Parts: sequence; C-alpha cells; structure tokens
Amino acid sequence: MGKSILITGGVRSGKSRHAEERTLVLGQPAIYIATAEAHDAEMADRIARHQARRGPEWRTIGAPLDLLGALRDTDSDGAPRLVDCLTLWLSNLMLSGQDWEAASDALAAALPDLRAPVVFVTNEVGAGIVPENALARAFRDAAGLVNQKVATASDELWLCVAGHPLKVK
Amino acid sequence: MGKSILITGGVRSGKSRHAEERTLVLGQPAIYIATAEAHDAEMADRIARHQARRGPEWRTIGAPLDLLGALRDTDSDGAPRLVDCLTLWLSNLMLSGQDWEAASDALAAALPDLRAPVVFVTNEVGAGIVPENALARAFRDAAGLVNQKVATASDELWLCVAGHPLKVK
Amino acid sequence: MGKSILITGGVRSGKSRHAEERTLVLGQPAIYIATAEAHDAEMADRIARHQARRGPEWRTIGAPLDLLGALRDTDSDGAPRLVDCLTLWLSNLMLSGQDWEAASDALAAALPDLRAPVVFVTNEVGAGIVPENALARAFRDAAGLVNQKVATASDELWLCVAGHPLKVK
Repeated sequence: MGKSILITGGVRSGKSRHAEERTLVLGQPAIYIATAEAHDAEMADRIARHQARRGPEWRTIGAPLDLLGALRDTDSDGAPRLVDCLTLWLSNLMLSGQDWEAASDALAAALPDLRAPVVFVTNEVGAGIVPENALARAFRDAAGLVNQKVATASDELWLCVAGHPLKVK
Repeated sequence: MGKSILITGGVRSGKSRHAEERTLVLGQPAIYIATAEAHDAEMADRIARHQARRGPEWRTIGAPLDLLGALRDTDSDGAPRLVDCLTLWLSNLMLSGQDWEAASDALAAALPDLRAPVVFVTNEVGAGIVPENALARAFRDAAGLVNQKVATASDELWLCVAGHPLKVK
Repeated sequence: MGKSILITGGVRSGKSRHAEERTLVLGQPAIYIATAEAHDAEMADRIARHQARRGPEWRTIGAPLDLLGALRDTDSDGAPRLVDCLTLWLSNLMLSGQDWEAASDALAAALPDLRAPVVFVTNEVGAGIVPENALARAFRDAAGLVNQKVATASDELWLCVAGHPLKVK
C-alpha cells in the first residue's frame, strides 16, 4: 500500500518545499493536488509563487472540496501525490457548508487503502492566543482535529521548524 | 516520590487524550482535577465533551484556584492525578486578582514532595503574532512563565503535535 | 570558522536564557548584540528585565538595523556574540522601509565566513490563526523566511518548549 506522510508547521516554516522534496523522492513525475482557490489577490500571488517554484516534473490538479475523489482518481498510476494543503481544504468545506468532520473521517479511513503514496501539507494554527472571533476559534479547533485524524492514519508525521523537519512519528 | 509529567501543545493537539492515557497507566482509579469553570455555553460544551470521553475509572474534583491544595488533599491515597489545565488555572488566578507568580512558584516548589503522581496539561499560546490586546500579551507571557516553572520541576515534558507526543525532556 | 546557532520558540519559552547559557559556554566575556529599541514603556521594561538578568560577563552593544555590520565589527577578538533577537531586527528593518530580504540574505551568506561564534534568538510567530491585519500577515511571513534563511546557514537549530530546548538540527 502507498505510504502516507503528514507535514505540519507554522506559516513559512518550509512545509511546502520539504513536502515537494519528499514527494519527488517517492517518484517522478508527481501530481500536485492544489486545494487552494484564488479568492483574492494575496492568495493568487501566493499560489503563483508556489507554482513558479515547481518544475516540469509536476502535473497539477485542483481539488478544493472533493479531495478524496482526487486521490482515488489519481491512485491507479502509482505516481506520488502532494496535497497542499489540508487547512485550505477544511476552510473550503466550512465555507461551502459541507460536513468537514464526515469528510475528514472518510479521508482518514481511506488512506490505508490507497495504492500510490501521498504527502499532505497542513498548518499549525492553534499555538497562539485564543482568538476573539468565534469563527476563528471554530476553525482552529477543526484544523486541530483534521490534523489529528490524518496524522493518526499516516505512516509519518513531521513538524517543520524554521525550514527544517523534525520527526514526530 | 510521585512522578510529575507536563504535556503541552496547541489547541486540539491531542493533549488531554494523551494525558488521560498516561495517567491511567500510572494507576486506576485516577483523579481528574478540573481547573475549568463553565463561564459560558462554549466552555460548558467543551467541558461536557471532555467528561463524556472519560469513563468510570475517573473521579472528578474541581480546583479552579487552589490547585496546590487539591493536589495535597489527594496525595495520601497514591492515585494518579490529571490536572487539566494549567492555562485555565492561570486565567482563573488572573481574573480573580490573585498572585499567579507566587501561586505557580509554590506549585513548582511543592512538586518534588508530592507522593502520588501528577500529569499536567497546558497550552502553547505564544507562537502566534503578538496580540494587539495588552491583556492577551500579559496572559501569554504569564502562561509561558508558568509552563517553564512547572516543566522545570517536572520529570517529563512532552509536546503534542497533531495528536502525537514528542518528548522534550 | 565560528559556529552559528539559532534558537527559536514562542514567547516566554526560555529562548533568551538558554541562548545566554549557550553563549557563555562558547567563551567569556561575551558580547550581547541587542536589536531592541525602547519604543514604549512595555518594551523598555522588558529590556531592563533582560539586562538585569545578565551579569558582568557581558558587554552590550545595540544594532537595531545594521546587524551584519555589528557582527563584522566584533568578529576579530573571537568573543562569542548573542543576537537577541532576529524578529525585532526584522521589525526595525520593515518599519524603516529597508529591504529586509536583501539584508537577511546578506546575513545568511556572511555567516560561514565569521570567525567568532554567534548565537541568534528568534521567535515563532506563525503557529496561530491567520491575523486579520495585513501588516501582521506580512510580518509573520517575513519572520518565517528570515528564520529559514538563518537556520539553513547555521550549524545548529533548537526549538525551545516550556523552557527546554529541543534539537531540530
């Protein structure tokens, strides 16, 4: 069965770059599964910078909501997949009123049955002061739970600190 | 003397569940020392979910302010104690105008003399951007200091990341 | 060549105290390179508390902007330097309109050529919820990048958790 790896860390901790390196070691060409949608200029700029850094060894597909479907659709050819990132996927699910708990449970339950490897990027968003905004509190609670579910179902868990990965599991 | 263990991490990082598992390994039945007070519906809901997850192997007592007193009162029978959590205790001390520095110094100083083991849960609240709110800044400074004092007096220190504990000490 | 060490962590995680200990092991007397400027009473109070903790084995110089110049000026006598901290240096650069990317690239590029050791303190500011304030978002992105650059050019990288250092590299 395909290996699953979760890479977490704060913003600009080198998660995406490390995840790309890990994915390309697992096989080339690789598939980049983008969960981001360019809602505003700041996000569009960030997506463009990320794409510019990746080279021709990547094929990119978008999966803002149906992440498990995208993983299943790309599972047969054995190419490693990079999912960047789980917190944006969660945000898309919440904003579109979908059941993020059921979706993340289904994702975690399906991981052991995937044949091709998958590397997930996620974010640490719960190590600051409690936000005054109730939606922000709900989001960081949900992000922590999604990270736990996927980490438990994954073979490896890494925490990126200042660009360097620290093995947790 | 009883072992002391401090388990820290961001919100929803699996701290409480890991602390419960560690405590029950140290002995059963165990004593759950709750520092939370149900000030609002959101907190009441969180407390109820935590209690529902714990089973009959737990006896629960509340200690929103006199945590050291609760530890001393429950020290003679040898049952392990789980304190959940230090940041709520600190918040209660600050809100009631008590001297949290003296209280946390006394707690740390007393730890080596306790006979029954104790597992503390606390929160990482200082890895986000500097809050604009002065009280929030004071709280995260205080939480960091309390965590340092208790960690230094404890035998073990663990950081939970996405549900998985990482040994720091 | 002089060893470079980067020590990161959340607020009140014991970074400065640990960095001072590491620096004094590398040689005495040591040079404290302060990047802080006392803009307000809260910061002045924090600087004063930090200075009071340090003893006569330290010589203090200020380098709010030209950090690389200060490192070069103090490089010939071989005394270890402690830079506290990179995030304040970054903040000073941004507030004065200087090119922080060029400055941090130059700093990272120069590190391998320094003869005397240097210990850097920095802050984890990117593990909370995304700030609503655009300047705060830009700052935490920049801080993450500066930390990555300096960590990559350093020989050691440590994460402080509740007063205890965890080796990342």
